[in-house]
Amino acid sequence: MKAVRYIQAGQPPEIVDVPQPTPGPGQVLLRVAGAGVCHSDLHVLDHGGFAHPFTLGHENAGHIAALGQGVVGYKEGDAVAVYGPWGCGHCHACQRSAENYCQHHASLPAMGGGLGADGGMAEYMIVPSPRLLVPLGTLDPVQAAPLSDAALTPYHAIKAALPWLTPDASVVVVGIGGLGHMAVQILRALTPAQLIACDIDDAKLAHAAQLGAHHTVNTRDVKAAREAIAALVGERGAAVALDFVGAQATVDLCARIVGRASRLTIVGLGGGVLHYGANRPPYGCEVSVPYWGTRAELMEVIALAEAGRIHAEVESFPLEQAPQVYQRLREGRIRGRAVLRP
Amino acid sequence: MKAVRYIQAGQPPEIVDVPQPTPGPGQVLLRVAGAGVCHSDLHVLDHGGFAHPFTLGHENAGHIAALGQGVVGYKEGDAVAVYGPWGCGHCHACQRSAENYCQHHASLPAMGGGLGADGGMAEYMIVPSPRLLVPLGTLDPVQAAPLSDAALTPYHAIKAALPWLTPDASVVVVGIGGLGHMAVQILRALTPAQLIACDIDDAKLAHAAQLGAHHTVNTRDVKAAREAIAALVGERGAAVALDFVGAQATVDLCARIVGRASRLTIVGLGGGVLHYGANRPPYGCEVSVPYWGTRAELMEVIALAEAGRIHAEVESFPLEQAPQVYQRLREGRIRGRAVLRP
Amino acid sequence: MKAVRYIQAGQPPEIVDVPQPTPGPGQVLLRVAGAGVCHSDLHVLDHGGFAHPFTLGHENAGHIAALGQGVVGYKEGDAVAVYGPWGCGHCHACQRSAENYCQHHASLPAMGGGLGADGGMAEYMIVPSPRLLVPLGTLDPVQAAPLSDAALTPYHAIKAALPWLTPDASVVVVGIGGLGHMAVQILRALTPAQLIACDIDDAKLAHAAQLGAHHTVNTRDVKAAREAIAALVGERGAAVALDFVGAQATVDLCARIVGRASRLTIVGLGGGVLHYGANRPPYGCEVSVPYWGTRAELMEVIALAEAGRIHAEVESFPLEQAPQVYQRLREGRIRGRAVLRP
Amino acid sequence: MKAVRYIQAGQPPEIVDVPQPTPGPGQVLLRVAGAGVCHSDLHVLDHGGFAHPFTLGHENAGHIAALGQGVVGYKEGDAVAVYGPWGCGHCHACQRSAENYCQHHASLPAMGGGLGADGGMAEYMIVPSPRLLVPLGTLDPVQAAPLSDAALTPYHAIKAALPWLTPDASVVVVGIGGLGHMAVQILRALTPAQLIACDIDDAKLAHAAQLGAHHTVNTRDVKAAREAIAALVGERGAAVALDFVGAQATVDLCARIVGRASRLTIVGLGGGVLHYGANRPPYGCEVSVPYWGTRAELMEVIALAEAGRIHAEVESFPLEQAPQVYQRLREGRIRGRAVLRP
Repeated sequence: MKAVRYIQAGQPPEIVDVPQPTPGPGQVLLRVAGAGVCHSDLHVLDHGGFAHPFTLGHENAGHIAALGQGVVGYKEGDAVAVYGPWGCGHCHACQRSAENYCQHHASLPAMGGGLGADGGMAEYMIVPSPRLLVPLGTLDPVQAAPLSDAALTPYHAIKAALPWLTPDASVVVVGIGGLGHMAVQILRALTPAQLIACDIDDAKLAHAAQLGAHHTVNTRDVKAAREAIAALVGERGAAVALDFVGAQATVDLCARIVGRASRLTIVGLGGGVLHYGANRPPYGCEVSVPYWGTRAELMEVIALAEAGRIHAEVESFPLEQAPQVYQRLREGRIRGRAVLRP
Repeated sequence: MKAVRYIQAGQPPEIVDVPQPTPGPGQVLLRVAGAGVCHSDLHVLDHGGFAHPFTLGHENAGHIAALGQGVVGYKEGDAVAVYGPWGCGHCHACQRSAENYCQHHASLPAMGGGLGADGGMAEYMIVPSPRLLVPLGTLDPVQAAPLSDAALTPYHAIKAALPWLTPDASVVVVGIGGLGHMAVQILRALTPAQLIACDIDDAKLAHAAQLGAHHTVNTRDVKAAREAIAALVGERGAAVALDFVGAQATVDLCARIVGRASRLTIVGLGGGVLHYGANRPPYGCEVSVPYWGTRAELMEVIALAEAGRIHAEVESFPLEQAPQVYQRLREGRIRGRAVLRP
Repeated sequence: MKAVRYIQAGQPPEIVDVPQPTPGPGQVLLRVAGAGVCHSDLHVLDHGGFAHPFTLGHENAGHIAALGQGVVGYKEGDAVAVYGPWGCGHCHACQRSAENYCQHHASLPAMGGGLGADGGMAEYMIVPSPRLLVPLGTLDPVQAAPLSDAALTPYHAIKAALPWLTPDASVVVVGIGGLGHMAVQILRALTPAQLIACDIDDAKLAHAAQLGAHHTVNTRDVKAAREAIAALVGERGAAVALDFVGAQATVDLCARIVGRASRLTIVGLGGGVLHYGANRPPYGCEVSVPYWGTRAELMEVIALAEAGRIHAEVESFPLEQAPQVYQRLREGRIRGRAVLRP
Repeated sequence: MKAVRYIQAGQPPEIVDVPQPTPGPGQVLLRVAGAGVCHSDLHVLDHGGFAHPFTLGHENAGHIAALGQGVVGYKEGDAVAVYGPWGCGHCHACQRSAENYCQHHASLPAMGGGLGADGGMAEYMIVPSPRLLVPLGTLDPVQAAPLSDAALTPYHAIKAALPWLTPDASVVVVGIGGLGHMAVQILRALTPAQLIACDIDDAKLAHAAQLGAHHTVNTRDVKAAREAIAALVGERGAAVALDFVGAQATVDLCARIVGRASRLTIVGLGGGVLHYGANRPPYGCEVSVPYWGTRAELMEVIALAEAGRIHAEVESFPLEQAPQVYQRLREGRIRGRAVLRP
């Protein structure tokens, strides 16, 4: 079968013929319906850090093609999403379904399918255990694939911030891209807080407003943006800031607009660094750089999508166009999320 | 191999020759070192509710004898405790390790090993998945076996009550038997609350004091006991009451001593019923009848025991004496926890 | 000034001339704009339990007429809601704003204004401390008065249930009256859970659907209702049930539809009693009979109303019509919430 | 009466004659028994930031000398501790007792008694409201005074970290001075976690071991310390790090030893800055710079002290020696906490 493969750092992905895999005991063979194309793959392709080639694709959904010996709870043909960060499965974090924070991550052979192990950019994919699957119900797997990262990651960040998001609170979302536009929908579904969406692109701000943001602020002029946000959040400051860009300018902006006893979450890997000392950001501000989400949270994300409360904007392509799709992603010419159809 | 078997409701357990099992794919074969003898087994033996005979023993620990195909994370010889309530493994509760509240429990073939499926009162036992194991570290498996129920059950009840157990709060433990004497130790290890132990047996109260209870109250004279507790907890009332007896008298006592915005947990299955309406127990009292604990909590219980913070009183017997041990248990002549050594 | 007074148990309320009060040091004089007429007043009028006559009205909002000496943070003319359950103000519960669970409630002279102390059914009312006020912002005090009970009480119940209300969960609201119709709105604003509204009146169910309930079930035929709810919530059962009726039939219904590890909250004082023992309601179900809400929660309720997310249906009457309004309330002929305008 | 006063930035404190104050309506007059001498006062004396002179002392306890008009709940002679950070009293944070995070702090005239307003280094002190008092029960006010900061500040930091402090977790306390030696005691009273105490002074480490630390590590040799801690916490890393120094070296150390999904709290104002970006500290690490604690937490601290679970080491001096005591503090020649007796 054809597979889109990482070869080595600094080299573009290649489409290669690989043998169709067979599930071992306890494993599941997935016929991939959709594999999301993620910004973080560009980081992998450019900087690598992996010793061997592997098939890309860490946002996967499809149908079960075969069950390895001993697998129970699923049957051939079931539509499922694949949980992405694969942990050891038996530490305290993995037991609670938080494989994204596996305590043995440093000694794992891979971070997940498409991240060291073979991922979903091929006709078939091995999932090491049924614990890594979530039933899709009535959802279309092509639509569902990006939920496993582009929705799960903001969902995880927002769920940890829920105690702050009371009706009298304000939340600022910076960056209305693949993850940010999911964050706006998730916040509206889960919280009554005043939602302020920020971006430097007015079209994205219009999109945010359409998805339910109460206010939008263009942050191209940082000083004006800070004043506009300050007027909206009042003396108290923002209770929560979620930075899906993570550049120095956005991190700095977030640190200025949050109030005391607030929460600042940096999701985007834009290279920004928060210099955190006494009273900057304000006292009692909890700062976090979360990673992906838990298995149980993926179940909740799928439930949200099935209920029609969140929806990923998807543009799908045949697997063969992977190199061009990565190129368009690099050039910022993908609207919503690109998904490959093997 | 010899096995202590449930035959049918109303019949005493029998020692029967059964074939030594072989682990299928994804399963683990345990060489049992200790299998706890639990009060709830008497309920099973008397009232049954199971369609087929099975090997008893739901508090198990031992060493791994063989790994089924596809099992990773463990090796032969590892000392492990076995998590008791076996769920479907893939619902939201099971994913978070709370198989005790499996959402599919009504359609499961068995409630666990020793509870419908073959348990640990035999030389070998099949554990269906390594997710149900917890490494024992340096603990002796014979000592550790009862922790999987007699410590896990109160630990689960106490963990849910932690937000109430601030330094200015009082907690009342009723019934200092197998579970209650573990509860006293767990409360002292996890909380700064004033701990009042209650029983009708002065020897057990002396034991509670030795294990760290700040006060003890004999509840044989209910009215005097209520007054003694009221004097200790003051106008606020107890913040938490844990009833490990669950008889009508103890449930009624607990409902009288808790204050507003408190927590009343009934663990013992003594047939008592709480009549809960407006203002009795007081407004804001949260009442719960929990069941066993989660996989992650069993890890925490094992960690507590390894650190020397809790210790189960164990009297061990050869497997062959099972019938006599059950008889002694029925007559209240077991001190601490009886464990069978196959 | 004219005041609607409780005289003694079993006697109808009377309109009486009383002197206009003057605020002492630390107190606030409120010019009442609206005083809600609450079902629980009927209980007070019928069964009493108070030693002295007092002015009724425990759901109050208006404008500040005068500040007692030493009061800071407010000025004359400010529009405010009055928090209803007045505690000692200095115990652990009161310090955290949970005066509804004041630890000294048993020794307090009154439960609040309109509940032992003079309430809001008069032109002026004394509020003992500014800590009991919440600024109304742009809200109309007549519309806001009932929020202090009819919205705060369900808000408090729902807030404690939030950890259960994940996107894959179902919540059942029983009784779509004064509190229930607020609960539907609050649940939709705060949670993504599937919301099932129950009542025996189809008009109220239609109202619930309009306010955002995903499903409605008429519970007149209890068996059919139980089956309809079971089909909606699936094998897992309801994660949360909120009973705003509290009659035996509704309490029994709730106990049957909740699943394991769920939450059952009885708000209505309909005389129903939950018989809580092993496995009925299911294991791990937390049961609570809450009382009113906290000061901080009232701030959040007011914020929700200001944001247009919740709205109390109000029918207002001149103070002089109080006796007739209570009579109509008793006969079930008030739609939404009646508010008296002094 | 004599008072120890801040005059202006860069000037030593002066002992000045000031008139004895009279409590206004709603205020309380305290006869000061003890006023703690805190490191942060040196920062105030050196860098100021206050427009007017005021009496120093923000860690105060004593007896009520007189009640202003309208004050209820206390009487003359009551022994009380004074809560230090004075907020507006009516914002959402203050209502919940978290005046340390008052939403109007930027517009307040002072941060508290001894911090802009007159504090406790005088025979008498005005406390603006009884909500700022906590009854001392049987505690000696001279011993209790430092609890209001030196114990409350670590208590607040630790309370927020409790969900991380399970029995399988490790917590690292850096800096065993005035706050750190309280932190060790609080951690042992509230949590079962493995406690590793760090300092550069072996005498302080011996003190930590005596107070209950399970392990001690001298951090003078940073690399060796890191390795020693790594050996103790294992591959998982520390679940919680509490830095009571806050210098660059200690902040850097903490960022290196915490694991994924951990919590790093910087309490000390040593000028260190955490550079927080992707994966350094590890993903999912929550970082916080908290400030003091809440009124309800001070009640819990006092309860801990009354129960004999925590104890501040106090050296007391007559008020007149204030200048010399500050000098000794600056030179690091105070053991435990210095308290002035007016």
